[in-house]
Amino acid sequence: MRPLGRVESCFEEKFGTPRQSGLVPAAHGRVVFSDEVPAEACRGLAEFSHIWLVFLFDRVQAGEEHWLVRPPRLGGNEKMGVFATRSPFRPNRIGLSLVRLESVGEGFLEVSGLDVVEGTPVLDVKPYLPYVESVPEAEGGFASEAPERLEVIFSDDVRGVLKDEQFRLIKEVLAVDPRPAYHGDDRVYGCRISGLEVKWKVVDGRVLVLSSERAMK
Amino acid sequence: MRPLGRVESCFEEKFGTPRQSGLVPAAHGRVVFSDEVPAEACRGLAEFSHIWLVFLFDRVQAGEEHWLVRPPRLGGNEKMGVFATRSPFRPNRIGLSLVRLESVGEGFLEVSGLDVVEGTPVLDVKPYLPYVESVPEAEGGFASEAPERLEVIFSDDVRGVLKDEQFRLIKEVLAVDPRPAYHGDDRVYGCRISGLEVKWKVVDGRVLVLSSERAMK
Repeated sequence: MRPLGRVESCFEEKFGTPRQSGLVPAAHGRVVFSDEVPAEACRGLAEFSHIWLVFLFDRVQAGEEHWLVRPPRLGGNEKMGVFATRSPFRPNRIGLSLVRLESVGEGFLEVSGLDVVEGTPVLDVKPYLPYVESVPEAEGGFASEAPERLEVIFSDDVRGVLKDEQFRLIKEVLAVDPRPAYHGDDRVYGCRISGLEVKWKVVDGRVLVLSSERAMK
Repeated sequence: MRPLGRVESCFEEKFGTPRQSGLVPAAHGRVVFSDEVPAEACRGLAEFSHIWLVFLFDRVQAGEEHWLVRPPRLGGNEKMGVFATRSPFRPNRIGLSLVRLESVGEGFLEVSGLDVVEGTPVLDVKPYLPYVESVPEAEGGFASEAPERLEVIFSDDVRGVLKDEQFRLIKEVLAVDPRPAYHGDDRVYGCRISGLEVKWKVVDGRVLVLSSERAMK
């Protein structure tokens, strides 16, 4: 197995990266193919609105894989078999994300709805086949519904310095509550989103965005 | 990357194996885990009705991969980029199938809707998340709808020797027309399905099942 390309993502670190694809439509990025991949490998792909990215969770190290994991959706208190979760700490470390295909460029794909960290190696790209893969009546166990969205509140100061697309992205990312399951109550969290260092905390179930500054490289 | 198990399938050879999962609900099989996989790895999985199998197309040899392929859905006349298809002749040879999870056993999973050949190495098992992965409005390009089903006709002789589940399986397999795209018209085809050697041909758009005998090992 070899990477066929890498993801260029608005997420530079695991913390803050959405836990599933599609949750943050504003999360844009690219799949940049390696030199061995000719343009013809994407012929016909632009007809599809959604594609699968098969990738390697390369920020998980060998030895960090587990047969039992604690899904954040269960509050972090309950252990589930890794095959019943989408945890990255899985044997073979293969990830699978359904993203919207925005456009096909020369040597790259523009996608949105990303849940993948910057630099992630891509092992395969496949078209999404709705007649096979859209099963709305499927039973999704402990993860049968989308996580509840939190209200996200920006002070005028913070809002004022953000471009519209930055505002939308930060709002969507924080609305799905990236905190670890075993979080304290009123801690201030910081995460990097699209080159910004964003500080926020959760008060009474609402996210307050405290500051947003250009991140140091 | 290492196999975490193997598929026990009713399909012993590529010819006759459905081209997508879910097309043949009667296609039952098992994922049999290797000894290293403990039972706890599947804790919680039984809550899900559908699962992803990530597997290796191990019947494709190194060097048989192509950047351009001819999808049977396009009559075999048109070349498409491999990333726009689900062809097994793809770099890294990773396959992805959505199957129904029938039950979780000790060391194995019972599944249906299989489109995978006997012995296929399984690299990962993941739960299907309908709130993320069911996108009925997605545009599916040249494969936006299920293939048309052909009528399948059994002679009384053939029907008489088949058990009900064999009859159903053969009928569903042949209805989606496993012929290669560049087929001749009235050739007699044979394929192995669930231990039977089945002979059939297509006449006026209907499948005639000519014979069905226990296959020699």
